[in-house]
Amino acid sequence: MQPIGAKPISASAAEALQVVLPNDTNPLGNVLGGRVMHWIDMIAAVVAFRHSNRPVVTAAMERLEFHSPIRLGQVAILKAALNYVGRTSMEVGVEVYAEDPMSGERHHTSSAILTYVALDNNGKPIPVPPLRAETPEEKRRYQDGERRYQERKQRRSHSDSKS
Amino acid sequence: MQPIGAKPISASAAEALQVVLPNDTNPLGNVLGGRVMHWIDMIAAVVAFRHSNRPVVTAAMERLEFHSPIRLGQVAILKAALNYVGRTSMEVGVEVYAEDPMSGERHHTSSAILTYVALDNNGKPIPVPPLRAETPEEKRRYQDGERRYQERKQRRSHSDSKS
Amino acid sequence: MQPIGAKPISASAAEALQVVLPNDTNPLGNVLGGRVMHWIDMIAAVVAFRHSNRPVVTAAMERLEFHSPIRLGQVAILKAALNYVGRTSMEVGVEVYAEDPMSGERHHTSSAILTYVALDNNGKPIPVPPLRAETPEEKRRYQDGERRYQERKQRRSHSDSKS
Amino acid sequence: MQPIGAKPISASAAEALQVVLPNDTNPLGNVLGGRVMHWIDMIAAVVAFRHSNRPVVTAAMERLEFHSPIRLGQVAILKAALNYVGRTSMEVGVEVYAEDPMSGERHHTSSAILTYVALDNNGKPIPVPPLRAETPEEKRRYQDGERRYQERKQRRSHSDSKS
Amino acid sequence: MQPIGAKPISASAAEALQVVLPNDTNPLGNVLGGRVMHWIDMIAAVVAFRHSNRPVVTAAMERLEFHSPIRLGQVAILKAALNYVGRTSMEVGVEVYAEDPMSGERHHTSSAILTYVALDNNGKPIPVPPLRAETPEEKRRYQDGERRYQERKQRRSHSDSKS
Amino acid sequence: MQPIGAKPISASAAEALQVVLPNDTNPLGNVLGGRVMHWIDMIAAVVAFRHSNRPVVTAAMERLEFHSPIRLGQVAILKAALNYVGRTSMEVGVEVYAEDPMSGERHHTSSAILTYVALDNNGKPIPVPPLRAETPEEKRRYQDGERRYQERKQRRSHSDSKS
Repeated sequence: MQPIGAKPISASAAEALQVVLPNDTNPLGNVLGGRVMHWIDMIAAVVAFRHSNRPVVTAAMERLEFHSPIRLGQVAILKAALNYVGRTSMEVGVEVYAEDPMSGERHHTSSAILTYVALDNNGKPIPVPPLRAETPEEKRRYQDGERRYQERKQRRSHSDSKS
Repeated sequence: MQPIGAKPISASAAEALQVVLPNDTNPLGNVLGGRVMHWIDMIAAVVAFRHSNRPVVTAAMERLEFHSPIRLGQVAILKAALNYVGRTSMEVGVEVYAEDPMSGERHHTSSAILTYVALDNNGKPIPVPPLRAETPEEKRRYQDGERRYQERKQRRSHSDSKS
Repeated sequence: MQPIGAKPISASAAEALQVVLPNDTNPLGNVLGGRVMHWIDMIAAVVAFRHSNRPVVTAAMERLEFHSPIRLGQVAILKAALNYVGRTSMEVGVEVYAEDPMSGERHHTSSAILTYVALDNNGKPIPVPPLRAETPEEKRRYQDGERRYQERKQRRSHSDSKS
Repeated sequence: MQPIGAKPISASAAEALQVVLPNDTNPLGNVLGGRVMHWIDMIAAVVAFRHSNRPVVTAAMERLEFHSPIRLGQVAILKAALNYVGRTSMEVGVEVYAEDPMSGERHHTSSAILTYVALDNNGKPIPVPPLRAETPEEKRRYQDGERRYQERKQRRSHSDSKS
Repeated sequence: MQPIGAKPISASAAEALQVVLPNDTNPLGNVLGGRVMHWIDMIAAVVAFRHSNRPVVTAAMERLEFHSPIRLGQVAILKAALNYVGRTSMEVGVEVYAEDPMSGERHHTSSAILTYVALDNNGKPIPVPPLRAETPEEKRRYQDGERRYQERKQRRSHSDSKS
Repeated sequence: MQPIGAKPISASAAEALQVVLPNDTNPLGNVLGGRVMHWIDMIAAVVAFRHSNRPVVTAAMERLEFHSPIRLGQVAILKAALNYVGRTSMEVGVEVYAEDPMSGERHHTSSAILTYVALDNNGKPIPVPPLRAETPEEKRRYQDGERRYQERKQRRSHSDSKS
């Protein structure tokens, strides 16, 4: 059963695009990796901001791979949605695509997973609303997110007990 | 009857968002009008680029009103789609919304209409694919766009015959 | 007779220039339309700010055409002056020229008309000083501005009476 | 024994700093996570560029945590050095510190590990010089990097054999 | 007697303005010195570019003082004109003013003197047109510029003969 | 004898690097002089900020020469350290190098000397800690800085007595 007051994943999902301009690229005309990371963080932060109705800070980004370059003059398409939320943390998934408007082709370049924490007025973590996964795809990603959440928690308590 | 080879409006429609950062605002914390115009032009150009599969230049923007401010820390949501295409020109409509992630409220701030021209490799206008309006809403906007297109053409031929 | 305390148009007129850098251009080396709109809004806002001695917000921009491109490495020249002021609104005209420092040639690319509103400390519209048109050219533009002002007012009251 | 022609880690190590300006921060005055990622990628790319004497692209960034915020007016200090190099890939470690020039305090905020690939003139991966770890600290990080390299290779061959 | 083919100082003089935005300021709200230097160099380069009709590079800037701060929300006014030209070098003077649109006050903040060299297509210095000083003020600045030019030449030949 | 409470030069010295991106260059691919000035001011301000533990403003920059260009895709290396401090002013020296990561070559392009003033909470100059020069090189630069400081003081009192 879904918790009362839960907000659906679709309510905070976001889509954005970025035209790759000269300053976003290296001398070979490929987008700078760090620029894409910045775009990923911006849209993911909006998703977490929308869900929590609170300012958020980036807590972590999971391993990120760039499978293929995005080139000068192409368009980066970013799609972001919550995977899972803990008590005060929110896990957002972002898919990045490179679209070439000359050919109309679009291919997947990266999948990112980021964790955000919502903050109260004193800058301390504050509980966030529960999340409602509705489609089978959302439910699968919710379970994956929950598994990562538990793993991170265990890793943390493990390293705490050592120290 | 729709022309053969026409591309649907939905195929080039685009959505984007922009977090309003300090440098986008005046000392009162309201977004600079020109920054919003820049965001409008970028997403509209992507729509025209997608439809024509050609580089495009902005030919004109119709009268643009700002009905209410977008504030620092809020998110500007932009939705853009083709209204109408002539032989070498494309009319794009852009709706701008201000969303306040703290309250979850979203309100409409501007409606923009821009015209783009697709260019060949010599920088000359080149014919663009015909456009297929599918929904009743798209058809209404298509007719409005066609009317504006005819008015602009008449105005131009009128001023040509005077000179 | 000119109103007492009126400020002359020349007192707030402004001139600016912008070197077109790579990030201001599309892959064909033409300036992005939205970048020019941003430059137009910045200088026009300064003119309205100077006249009213108050923070201002952009209320509207009239139809804007780009007659010819400005290219990478060229210089955009912007000249802005008040056309007309109402009680709380100010209409500013901006002329944009592209100058090619290699050839020394300069040509006109756009004429823009923008309306600004001055704000009090609560962000509400506040009356602005009257405007004094002095040269024949300024008087002609003042009358054109006044006509547009009356038309906008009628359009507004018309749409109000309908709603 | 170290391979002939190997370049020492110190030869490509780099240090940089970034003053946190208003546009780098969220409304709470904390630096945007994506901005830090961009700074991390820029300095790490310089390190890989120096070692390989070739243009490089970001292939991946390992899990990145932000342990504490960097605030408006503070300075981000970044220190980057190669950990390990494979045949065409280079692993760079970046340490990020927040320094508060008002108090003189500096604390560690993030550790990043990124992988770069050097490219030939056709944009294809090209072998890079071997790396010489000299200090005990460098040797420990070299071994850690080698272990991650082997794990990534196995993961890749594993997922290849499945497909 | 003025040299044949000389271009008047007024033909390349330029005026620009820059609204001081948040990212241009330090945490106290004062403009960053380096941002002003950048604005100074941009307008001075345009003046040299206009006079020579050739791409130019900055060769030097004389001692620059900031007599008073320019603050967030104020407008920097820049006025630039050639002082003197040698065979391939051009000396440009730039006056910087801070204007506060709230009070209408304007005060002088800096005087800069920069030297530019015009380049041929191989990036080598190329002779520039002679300069015609017309007003008494221009003639005084021309003589001052010529004196500095001779001093720089002597300093250079002196240091050459030592080495 | 060194004054009690003096801070060593090494405690505030800083190093930074900047990848030259397209927007930093003119159409010939050379870095804009004003961009380098901005980078110089940023790192020098950090040095003065570190030494004084107070916000600082740029008071002046001595004559700056660009001996050779830095090109698109190269890296600007900046090294900054205090030369000398007066009662409320601090003189910082910055050395700029251009590094070409393709060839591994690095050459010196500029030497800058800037003066900063530390400010109290009312924006007034505030005394700064004394400075301890330790190495022979630091002591030589300290003496040069002290000489310039005395010359500037004399020049100022001379121009004051005239007025």
